[in-house]
Amino acid sequence: MKEPRTIRAARLHGIRDLRLENLPRPTPGPGEVLLKVASVGICGSDVHYYLEGRIGNQVVTAPIIMGHEFSAWVADFGEGVEGLEIGQLVAVEPAISCGECESCRHGHPNLCPSVRFCSTPPVDGVFAEYTVMPARNCFPLPQGLSPAEGAMLEPLGVAIHAVDLAHLKPGYTVAVLGAGPIGLLIAAVVRASGASAIYVTEPLAYRRQFALDYVADAALNPDDIVVVAEIMRLTGGRGVDVAFEAAGAPETPQQAAALARPGGKVIVAGIPADDTMTMNASTVRHKGLTIKLVRRMKHTYPRAIRLVQTGMVDVKSLVTHTFPLERIAEALEMVAAYDDGVLRAMIQISNA
Amino acid sequence: MKEPRTIRAARLHGIRDLRLENLPRPTPGPGEVLLKVASVGICGSDVHYYLEGRIGNQVVTAPIIMGHEFSAWVADFGEGVEGLEIGQLVAVEPAISCGECESCRHGHPNLCPSVRFCSTPPVDGVFAEYTVMPARNCFPLPQGLSPAEGAMLEPLGVAIHAVDLAHLKPGYTVAVLGAGPIGLLIAAVVRASGASAIYVTEPLAYRRQFALDYVADAALNPDDIVVVAEIMRLTGGRGVDVAFEAAGAPETPQQAAALARPGGKVIVAGIPADDTMTMNASTVRHKGLTIKLVRRMKHTYPRAIRLVQTGMVDVKSLVTHTFPLERIAEALEMVAAYDDGVLRAMIQISNA
Amino acid sequence: MKEPRTIRAARLHGIRDLRLENLPRPTPGPGEVLLKVASVGICGSDVHYYLEGRIGNQVVTAPIIMGHEFSAWVADFGEGVEGLEIGQLVAVEPAISCGECESCRHGHPNLCPSVRFCSTPPVDGVFAEYTVMPARNCFPLPQGLSPAEGAMLEPLGVAIHAVDLAHLKPGYTVAVLGAGPIGLLIAAVVRASGASAIYVTEPLAYRRQFALDYVADAALNPDDIVVVAEIMRLTGGRGVDVAFEAAGAPETPQQAAALARPGGKVIVAGIPADDTMTMNASTVRHKGLTIKLVRRMKHTYPRAIRLVQTGMVDVKSLVTHTFPLERIAEALEMVAAYDDGVLRAMIQISNA
Amino acid sequence: MKEPRTIRAARLHGIRDLRLENLPRPTPGPGEVLLKVASVGICGSDVHYYLEGRIGNQVVTAPIIMGHEFSAWVADFGEGVEGLEIGQLVAVEPAISCGECESCRHGHPNLCPSVRFCSTPPVDGVFAEYTVMPARNCFPLPQGLSPAEGAMLEPLGVAIHAVDLAHLKPGYTVAVLGAGPIGLLIAAVVRASGASAIYVTEPLAYRRQFALDYVADAALNPDDIVVVAEIMRLTGGRGVDVAFEAAGAPETPQQAAALARPGGKVIVAGIPADDTMTMNASTVRHKGLTIKLVRRMKHTYPRAIRLVQTGMVDVKSLVTHTFPLERIAEALEMVAAYDDGVLRAMIQISNA
Repeated sequence: MKEPRTIRAARLHGIRDLRLENLPRPTPGPGEVLLKVASVGICGSDVHYYLEGRIGNQVVTAPIIMGHEFSAWVADFGEGVEGLEIGQLVAVEPAISCGECESCRHGHPNLCPSVRFCSTPPVDGVFAEYTVMPARNCFPLPQGLSPAEGAMLEPLGVAIHAVDLAHLKPGYTVAVLGAGPIGLLIAAVVRASGASAIYVTEPLAYRRQFALDYVADAALNPDDIVVVAEIMRLTGGRGVDVAFEAAGAPETPQQAAALARPGGKVIVAGIPADDTMTMNASTVRHKGLTIKLVRRMKHTYPRAIRLVQTGMVDVKSLVTHTFPLERIAEALEMVAAYDDGVLRAMIQISNA
Repeated sequence: MKEPRTIRAARLHGIRDLRLENLPRPTPGPGEVLLKVASVGICGSDVHYYLEGRIGNQVVTAPIIMGHEFSAWVADFGEGVEGLEIGQLVAVEPAISCGECESCRHGHPNLCPSVRFCSTPPVDGVFAEYTVMPARNCFPLPQGLSPAEGAMLEPLGVAIHAVDLAHLKPGYTVAVLGAGPIGLLIAAVVRASGASAIYVTEPLAYRRQFALDYVADAALNPDDIVVVAEIMRLTGGRGVDVAFEAAGAPETPQQAAALARPGGKVIVAGIPADDTMTMNASTVRHKGLTIKLVRRMKHTYPRAIRLVQTGMVDVKSLVTHTFPLERIAEALEMVAAYDDGVLRAMIQISNA
Repeated sequence: MKEPRTIRAARLHGIRDLRLENLPRPTPGPGEVLLKVASVGICGSDVHYYLEGRIGNQVVTAPIIMGHEFSAWVADFGEGVEGLEIGQLVAVEPAISCGECESCRHGHPNLCPSVRFCSTPPVDGVFAEYTVMPARNCFPLPQGLSPAEGAMLEPLGVAIHAVDLAHLKPGYTVAVLGAGPIGLLIAAVVRASGASAIYVTEPLAYRRQFALDYVADAALNPDDIVVVAEIMRLTGGRGVDVAFEAAGAPETPQQAAALARPGGKVIVAGIPADDTMTMNASTVRHKGLTIKLVRRMKHTYPRAIRLVQTGMVDVKSLVTHTFPLERIAEALEMVAAYDDGVLRAMIQISNA
Repeated sequence: MKEPRTIRAARLHGIRDLRLENLPRPTPGPGEVLLKVASVGICGSDVHYYLEGRIGNQVVTAPIIMGHEFSAWVADFGEGVEGLEIGQLVAVEPAISCGECESCRHGHPNLCPSVRFCSTPPVDGVFAEYTVMPARNCFPLPQGLSPAEGAMLEPLGVAIHAVDLAHLKPGYTVAVLGAGPIGLLIAAVVRASGASAIYVTEPLAYRRQFALDYVADAALNPDDIVVVAEIMRLTGGRGVDVAFEAAGAPETPQQAAALARPGGKVIVAGIPADDTMTMNASTVRHKGLTIKLVRRMKHTYPRAIRLVQTGMVDVKSLVTHTFPLERIAEALEMVAAYDDGVLRAMIQISNA
């Protein structure tokens, strides 16, 4: 065994205080795997912790390693691990659910109240050279999938879960509010899943253009036009079968409700800064809407792998920037600034 | 044919301006039935129009007859009506949906955008001696069901529809926020449908007592105790499988969300005065909740009849007061005042 | 109005006794449309009536016009028709449901016990120059869709309905047993709806090849290999999420059950000659399967139009042969013989 | 620790060869509990193994202890067990699922292909003084529930699971084919869950009478009358919303299909001797039926406890006979003979 004794990791000590440090290499216990981290995407939640030190009531009170969208190479095993090989590239599910609570037993590990989730305080994430995870969280990647694509399976999983909740039917029409990475991936999964019209709304011009080139039938600027009226016009006054809220803006849940047809669904994936979801009561009641909330994901990795492997969903073109671990602060600042052209920035921590 | 040429009806001319007038008796067209109105319940919406002249954006701009929860005797037919007999007592569904729109064709007449609903402006209701309705809206009552029970099938239908949306399973636990007539009927249907624990919240003492005597396992005063904490305690920290919001208060949607277990459902039946539904985003997201809105009812009359006929649901004891048509203003004022002991007031317009 | 007084139609008088006759042109009543028939596909049911004079307990006892998969030009209106124009090309839903029964009211017109269905005895079909149908059955085709594509929306609707019943999720794996037109269209809709692997079984070589060129990932010959074992191997021993039975063979329902994963679904679209559905009780019970039966279609035309218009489903390449009305017997014989290369034969009755 | 070193157990050595033997007392491992067995019900499957040495492809090849419907007192713990106390009476779920497979992770442990189920060869059951089970399988019984009621929670769980699959709505009508213990418990759960009419069919007179006294609205003898025609008559020609097959006879699956309304559900709980499920293809297709198979149960114990504790379901009156362990062969013979008055025979192995 030739893995190093100490590893490099980026730890957040406070707002905008990110330090590259040498930490002891973790050791895998029974059922666990030592992973040499390959690629880690920068999620909006990482940016929140970096800029504000918190997301809602989840607060950084001690130094923490962020990062949870990742792929890695298997470096070593604890006892009792089967089905994995040293050197294998795996995508890694960042949630360690308890397996014992009612939610876990009933098949909803994403709702486990005791879940330990990489990079959610106080659990360390993976902007680090090595980490340890349970073997059951590791999904071997087939030939041809890159480490960056492997890392993208995490946000893709959130999108798949959002679409799972919508119960699309062939030929459905859909709106996606917000063309950040999650909104775009939802649109891509929706396109692969039989939607015949996808209307995206997004204030940033480069993201609207990306959405059009990627999968959208229309990409509307909510600052210029009244998006509800425009999508009503595009759907002949009917509204869409499903409206996905993926912007997290104060007004987008109500827009989603207004865009849905009678009997339609609103799927809320966005995380609003003011921690409030407000809709007009008449709008939601008159149409008898169903509103579902997206909590991370469940059971998506095998399907995510197949969707990428078959080319049904393209995750590669969302990776617009790549940085080494040393430049992670620069990467976070870039993502935080919504610089033109930025979708997903990837930290490439090591190579095979 | 010996029906009178003119009929007595109570018409609302403005706020608190209700006039008993003689109007021409309506004539049934093809497929329609002339109905001699028996019993009409006073719904909260009638009170809203009476006190404020509006509900949200639905405004009384011309004299209108209110009233829509009713039973009647079949008095005459238009052409082509089959399956009904003169003199038969029927419960009457007050919604006339278009039958042609997508919602109607797909089996959701309650979501029909062109629906004509008794007592929703500008459609007249049935605080009147006679009315005309389509034959398909008339459901013959079996022996033993009284006119007042027939009128109660309308609010019972709303409760059934709310419970339909919840997909209860045997042994589920439930909270019902608000013990007005709709909340109580929801609790009664829930009790008949396999719920093993029903927690009701209600600020009015006489309604809490009624709820306990009627079907509830606990009835909590939200003014005295923190209902969320108390129901969490009663459920061992788990929360309820389904929370029904039937109060229409600004805070009850969020309470319902806070009371639901992870993966639970919130069914919103209340109509809030400020026309807004607000919930905490972390609460609904962390538990991955499903929120469904109750829009009137669909396909409930045959089942409502059976539930009352078999004694599975008692609607009779909710009828606490009965008035003749002449005293309708007095009845409305009494209901508006939330006088002690008032649940449903019934206007008995005629006898067989 | 310059439509002819008599029309040419092919009437079946007995087994293989099909006569071209001159019949009086029908006249549209209120809400109805006179249609100049464009293209009519030959369905397997037409062949059954032609060869055997019956399908199960539905027996030809009097001369009948067959044909029900069709498009047409609007030629004239009865009273009260709106939203259609003379000369417009429309796809026509062949089922006239009653609109009044419980199934119709609840949104399931395909289950209406009083349905009148073109070409199901004693209701005439549309191998004829003109026909009359309710306006609500007519769906205007957008620019670019041909009459033959319009006719194909009927079998496509059956496929969409089958897929609706399956509640696919993105990345699901699927088996389709039988690569006749319905099986192929199911496979095409499944492909458009997010399935990441589609395994087809079919004894005819040219249909297996078509399936592979069309949408399938594998096309297996049940005469050569044990299809259950082979698909189990292809899915790593797991089985498929959904198995569609579209062959109508005695053994295919059980094969479908054996192919499904634990908790999976079997969707039965095939119509077996012996009118029996048999499965192994242990197979279906140990896996806790859900089995759903496909009865025609409901609410599929608008979605079918969009799926073809956007190119998500290709119906054109299934139309392998076209005949004029005069050669309809020849066409039926060809389809009955399963001649190499035959999928859908289209009778082109008139041109715009 | 004063538990005995050897225990008495009834082992099946071959057809009708049941021997009371002294066996070493098992020792609980980590996470396991030593249980002093209280009451064990005799299930139909026990009788099958006793009489025939097999159920389908599950064959007794070595001596085996049968019995799996049971309650017990906690006698000792292995390491790491929390939340249980010595002397506590618990109901015990007899299935030990793997917790790792897709079915388990997705919340369907009843479909786990690697499940170890008490008394299914080669796994020993609990006709024995002591046994060891995982702590998570043990559900403490509240005050007032007897050991026999605790044992009955297992068949009650099967009934709850069957009703879960049916998605009943308030006021639904139901048929239950077969009034053995499972059919009766299904009927009881259905009654508690809002069904307004329950029609039972059963050839044995004493079971029909029990059904009527217990919860049924009608109990029909299939040997005397044509049950399908009779239930059609009782439902006004409509059929029932859900038909539960709990007889396992060759003809009952088709009867269930024939009894269901268009769009209805058939829930199959019976285990047929010939291991075949056959239905008429036209019947199931014309009505677009959904057929679901009952595989044991999942997540039912907490709800079963509440249903019994609140008195919503009475399990006690199904326990018609009680025997000590020494007389188990006599009990099995009695059950096998369908002696008049026999429903569930209980082996009372020890007292607190």
